[in-house]
Amino acid sequence: MSNGHEVEQVRRSGRRVGASGTREAILIAAGRQFAQHGYDRASLRGIAAEAGVDQKLIAHFFGSKQQLFVAAIELPVNPAVLLPTVLKGDRSSIGVRLAAILVTVLEQPEIHQRLTGVVRAAASEPEVARMMREFLTREVFAPAAELLGSEDAQFRLNLVGSQIVGLVMARYVVALEPLASMPPEAVAEAIAPTLQRYLVGPLPQTGK
Amino acid sequence: MSNGHEVEQVRRSGRRVGASGTREAILIAAGRQFAQHGYDRASLRGIAAEAGVDQKLIAHFFGSKQQLFVAAIELPVNPAVLLPTVLKGDRSSIGVRLAAILVTVLEQPEIHQRLTGVVRAAASEPEVARMMREFLTREVFAPAAELLGSEDAQFRLNLVGSQIVGLVMARYVVALEPLASMPPEAVAEAIAPTLQRYLVGPLPQTGK
Repeated sequence: MSNGHEVEQVRRSGRRVGASGTREAILIAAGRQFAQHGYDRASLRGIAAEAGVDQKLIAHFFGSKQQLFVAAIELPVNPAVLLPTVLKGDRSSIGVRLAAILVTVLEQPEIHQRLTGVVRAAASEPEVARMMREFLTREVFAPAAELLGSEDAQFRLNLVGSQIVGLVMARYVVALEPLASMPPEAVAEAIAPTLQRYLVGPLPQTGK
Repeated sequence: MSNGHEVEQVRRSGRRVGASGTREAILIAAGRQFAQHGYDRASLRGIAAEAGVDQKLIAHFFGSKQQLFVAAIELPVNPAVLLPTVLKGDRSSIGVRLAAILVTVLEQPEIHQRLTGVVRAAASEPEVARMMREFLTREVFAPAAELLGSEDAQFRLNLVGSQIVGLVMARYVVALEPLASMPPEAVAEAIAPTLQRYLVGPLPQTGK
């Protein structure tokens, strides 16, 4: 086993450490920097410095800071990609479409297991909760709110988020019956009107 | 510090250990027995034996197995008491009533902090998830389903549970904005129609 300084040397020289080693080093550094500084204040420059790699390599391997975060926290799907595709279509079927995609995606064991891990981490570590809040707010809710166009769009998306994380807990973690054994289509049908109303249906004027 | 055997002796004799010591011993034994055997298979007899106390003392301090569980897992409210009071009233305002009580109860910091702990534990420990499932199914959903009276009442109550745990996560744990800063009344208004539909509104025929 080489010591940390040697590893750093090898990495900086670009020799001996293959693509997977560099990628891994970036992910470890990203996890630490996001945890320490939160999503907003962590910088690609700082992550590159901690990983001992050129900042361009981060762009090469991951693209944006947002994509790096999704990879670092091992989010199984990128909600910043998923949500806009749903929001762009016909408004009257927005809840049905989101529910169908959601339940299908969640049905894959590696995905709901990974999401369980994220929920657990967010419930245990205030830093993870903060990262998730900043990430969701900036990268998911803000662009989605723009597509949605309503004044209370962020509140609406918060409500959608609450039903999604609750479904993960009830169906996959606590495995309440009969919810846990229901076919995905029945679950999608049951929650679609909720998502529909949260996204575009009547909501109370806030601050009442 | 006395060793375990001495403690046991003192407890069995009933001397030296005051009411709070006995109560504490029962809670510790209950926590272990519920974790080991699950809610359904843990017995008051076994818990009394592990705590080294007479089984009657459990009834004296806690009442039923259900009430002991609520105390052992430090549930801040007893859903088996809360839910039936809501379900008994007028059906057309059932969602409004449940949402109002729920949001008011959750607003107390000691309550949502404690619930966060339960969510975290359930997400981390399969045994806790199983205890919660068994407890909710037997002590909350089963009697509530009877009051509700519909054939799919358990499924309906699962859905209600999913929105409640999701609200705890989104409003208090991840603290999504603006949801986290909304006045309780606005949150109650936003989720009331969801709870109303889940409890008594139209739902898809399951198994479609």
